[in-house]
Amino acid sequence: MVTDNKTADANLESMLRIFTVPEAPDSTLGKIEQELSQNLNQFLREHIVAEEKPLTEIEKDFTDSSMPETPTYVSEHTEHLLDNLVSQSVHTSAPSFIGHMTSALPYFLMPLSKIMIALNQNLVKIETSKAFTPLERQVLGILHRLIYGEKDAFYQHWMHSADHSLGAFCSGGTIANITALWVARNRLFKPDGDFEGIAKQGLFAALTHYKCNGLAIFVSERGHYSVKKAADVLGIGQDGVIAVKTDNNNRICLDDLQLKIAAAKEKNIKPLAIIGVAGTTETGTIDPLRQLAKVAQKEACHFHVDAAWGGATLMSNTYRHLLDGIDLADSVTIDAHKQLYVPMGAGMVIFKDPELMSSIQHHAEYILRKGSKDLGRHTLEGSRSGMAMLLYSCFNVISRPGYELLINQSIEKAKYFSELIQQQDDFEIVTEPELCLLTYRYVPSKVKQALRLANDTERADIYEHLDNLTKYIQKTQRETGKSFVSRTRLTPEAYQYNPTIVFRVVLANPLTTKEILQSVLIEQREIANSSEISQPQLLALTDSILSRAN
Amino acid sequence: MVTDNKTADANLESMLRIFTVPEAPDSTLGKIEQELSQNLNQFLREHIVAEEKPLTEIEKDFTDSSMPETPTYVSEHTEHLLDNLVSQSVHTSAPSFIGHMTSALPYFLMPLSKIMIALNQNLVKIETSKAFTPLERQVLGILHRLIYGEKDAFYQHWMHSADHSLGAFCSGGTIANITALWVARNRLFKPDGDFEGIAKQGLFAALTHYKCNGLAIFVSERGHYSVKKAADVLGIGQDGVIAVKTDNNNRICLDDLQLKIAAAKEKNIKPLAIIGVAGTTETGTIDPLRQLAKVAQKEACHFHVDAAWGGATLMSNTYRHLLDGIDLADSVTIDAHKQLYVPMGAGMVIFKDPELMSSIQHHAEYILRKGSKDLGRHTLEGSRSGMAMLLYSCFNVISRPGYELLINQSIEKAKYFSELIQQQDDFEIVTEPELCLLTYRYVPSKVKQALRLANDTERADIYEHLDNLTKYIQKTQRETGKSFVSRTRLTPEAYQYNPTIVFRVVLANPLTTKEILQSVLIEQREIANSSEISQPQLLALTDSILSRAN
Repeated sequence: MVTDNKTADANLESMLRIFTVPEAPDSTLGKIEQELSQNLNQFLREHIVAEEKPLTEIEKDFTDSSMPETPTYVSEHTEHLLDNLVSQSVHTSAPSFIGHMTSALPYFLMPLSKIMIALNQNLVKIETSKAFTPLERQVLGILHRLIYGEKDAFYQHWMHSADHSLGAFCSGGTIANITALWVARNRLFKPDGDFEGIAKQGLFAALTHYKCNGLAIFVSERGHYSVKKAADVLGIGQDGVIAVKTDNNNRICLDDLQLKIAAAKEKNIKPLAIIGVAGTTETGTIDPLRQLAKVAQKEACHFHVDAAWGGATLMSNTYRHLLDGIDLADSVTIDAHKQLYVPMGAGMVIFKDPELMSSIQHHAEYILRKGSKDLGRHTLEGSRSGMAMLLYSCFNVISRPGYELLINQSIEKAKYFSELIQQQDDFEIVTEPELCLLTYRYVPSKVKQALRLANDTERADIYEHLDNLTKYIQKTQRETGKSFVSRTRLTPEAYQYNPTIVFRVVLANPLTTKEILQSVLIEQREIANSSEISQPQLLALTDSILSRAN
Repeated sequence: MVTDNKTADANLESMLRIFTVPEAPDSTLGKIEQELSQNLNQFLREHIVAEEKPLTEIEKDFTDSSMPETPTYVSEHTEHLLDNLVSQSVHTSAPSFIGHMTSALPYFLMPLSKIMIALNQNLVKIETSKAFTPLERQVLGILHRLIYGEKDAFYQHWMHSADHSLGAFCSGGTIANITALWVARNRLFKPDGDFEGIAKQGLFAALTHYKCNGLAIFVSERGHYSVKKAADVLGIGQDGVIAVKTDNNNRICLDDLQLKIAAAKEKNIKPLAIIGVAGTTETGTIDPLRQLAKVAQKEACHFHVDAAWGGATLMSNTYRHLLDGIDLADSVTIDAHKQLYVPMGAGMVIFKDPELMSSIQHHAEYILRKGSKDLGRHTLEGSRSGMAMLLYSCFNVISRPGYELLINQSIEKAKYFSELIQQQDDFEIVTEPELCLLTYRYVPSKVKQALRLANDTERADIYEHLDNLTKYIQKTQRETGKSFVSRTRLTPEAYQYNPTIVFRVVLANPLTTKEILQSVLIEQREIANSSEISQPQLLALTDSILSRAN
């Protein structure tokens, strides 16, 4: 018994050591940390394996479902992570990784993240966050001002006001969009006479009280999928998301919007919100926000702008005009982990009117007391980390003019890449960049000629082959691991509105050079030429069409 | 012009440097990072000011709503953060900070967090997370096995199955609870004949099709406030959350539950879910899960267990019996940032049946393609960080027996503290610890005597004074900054079910010693005795009652 107690004490003692004794600088983990600090890019280059291993192979290292019964030394576990996890992760910050909205990050964020994690604040309430609460409120205020440009007095009055909030910091654009529509829904179905409001009585009672058959959210067919998710979660149903047609530039058609609003009202379905997209995920296009605001005003419905991607453009005095009318929005979503260059897991929704968020206020006895400045009273999430600190630091260290440089060069680089593509015989631009995002595809010049002569059946055949080829090129390029572009499906006018697979490129990484862009095209051409199926079939078909014409 | 271009280039050059040139080891930030690595506790002790500054004072440093127009050097900004943010943050990992569920963290998580942030993966899809996706799926699988204990074959089949997911990793318990109830709602109102399901057609159509007047969620009056938030968000309405009475041990009353279910059904309101709380936030109590499961089964409704707090107890073979019946739950919420000791922002919901989450599947063209293993198809959130890696590392480095030691000592420490309180003449335990959480208050022995003799009016007066005194002690202790306990309001039988303010203590920090607990009581007694209002008034009242009796 005595021995058992002694063993138990010794075990506990060693367990407590992990809370009190730091990793030695010459330990495996200590050394890695230094490597990271000294040269992050080199570390990632050295440790991430470029060539893609099939997912089913990777999964083999992650199959054990048992909770480990014996502890592993930190150094041994670190080696394990390097070999099995880090090596098979995605080099999202590589300058040639231009397929998604990830980018290299400013170096100073690495040590600052460590401070943030070491402080381990919980922003849900003042008691576990103190100065982090005013800091987050300030960050929301600064963003509010960037969008809406109210005067000093406005911010002095509202920024730190208990019972109010200018917005919510959250894990990303999806939660931001859900929050915006939640607020819109609760505000529309507010307490009225006997009806105590939707928050209390629910959607069924709300529709009954307000005598309508349903709610509709209008957004272009290029809207983000989180809008449908929001409609599902909020009880509205995905059918309540009305996809409005887009024009040839992927912008929402105002005529179609009017028609669809009228059709909904005809069925006694109430317009809950019109959503303007400021930077669609697939093409980077910005809807005509000012005109959308007018429609929303006429319909007395909520106007939300999903600027998760494009919102950072407000930092650029050169390009912020692209978002003209955003200040008329009732709410705006902006992601900080996109072109505001902070690590994953930072989004925001900002509300024009500080009273708006009161429709989703929540309380609890032990925290979130009425009249407190606890941020948790106005967030969908509960416990949250101090991520706002990283954005605050970026605002101060990079500053608006610094962001302007980053935004401008990204847009100009996209224009350069677009021109480069158009100079090639065997590539075709599909959507021109408005922000730093564009789509294109590989179409050999012979195929371009053949398409002009092809009949409907032949054209459909060629399109199918081109789709397969695009897919093949994209997949092979990703697997080879030198560079990465993504792909999506669009319905461009140039292809008779046929669903068409295209390459999609996002040029947010400041370290992406023109040389990299040139080599992306060269590599794609090489892959196409080495294709053993798609390309030969395509060319055979093309030859037969062309020979018929001669 | 030439000069302007040159300036612009130089500015861009210096902006790119923040993405390429690391902080020098002898820079301000470099030094801080080393300090953090070498001795985190000392760093926090030295930099966090103990004595509390009023919030309105702190806010003065966070009032400027303008986006900075000039960049700040990283070193200068770091000094600013130390002086204004770090100094005024909350020392959540201090062994004497025993008021909330934060704790000291294992040291190895600090450098690992840096690796996680440097990799900056986005778990929404494989293309931006690769090995992190199987890793997260494994973490969910391990937790699933800890709860449900299925066989190897089960996990081999489901853990990495495309189109399935054993749960969702999310930012915390609130999102986890919302997700569980979202799944329950969508499963209850699934497609049926002409009805295409609530996800598509919304709540109104669902209630109409299924011919009922509303939905009800049954949870004890000690349930977490996120349940009401979920009911609001999901369109059910907070009135749909039926608060079930608790017994004297703060456990849900099964009789009252049956009565309330019957009452709801009487009104044609469908029971959506019964929620068992495994570790209430206020008292740490665990509901009788096995019996709740029986009721849920009888009613054919979803059984959710909110084990955000208590779930970690499953790691302890000594105490896991406290959660007996949890394996009968359809879904379970567990927070990793509580007693699984990872940093803020990590929660999970686990579903017994791998098919369950299909009711909330979402798709998008450019990502989340059907048949892919993208985790984003089954999460409320969109983009998410690689936090699962930290939990994975804790599982391996601490292992189950290590967690068991941590859990056991926390519960035993709570028992010790409870005994210590009961040994004092002038303290009273209000709720005994079941996990490592307990509540108590300061009641001088004379007051205890007087209460036995007081009439109803006098007793009410004394209660009011005691409430004020408890509040005063808690606030003063917090402001003094040596230690922190929280407070909440309960309705204990011992106080005739009057709403009563009590101290609340959570002993999750492994570094909290018995000496600290002793000194917390000593400090509270001293504060009480130094009170210039509450204590003298209370004693005067007491004296008058006692003198009347003599």
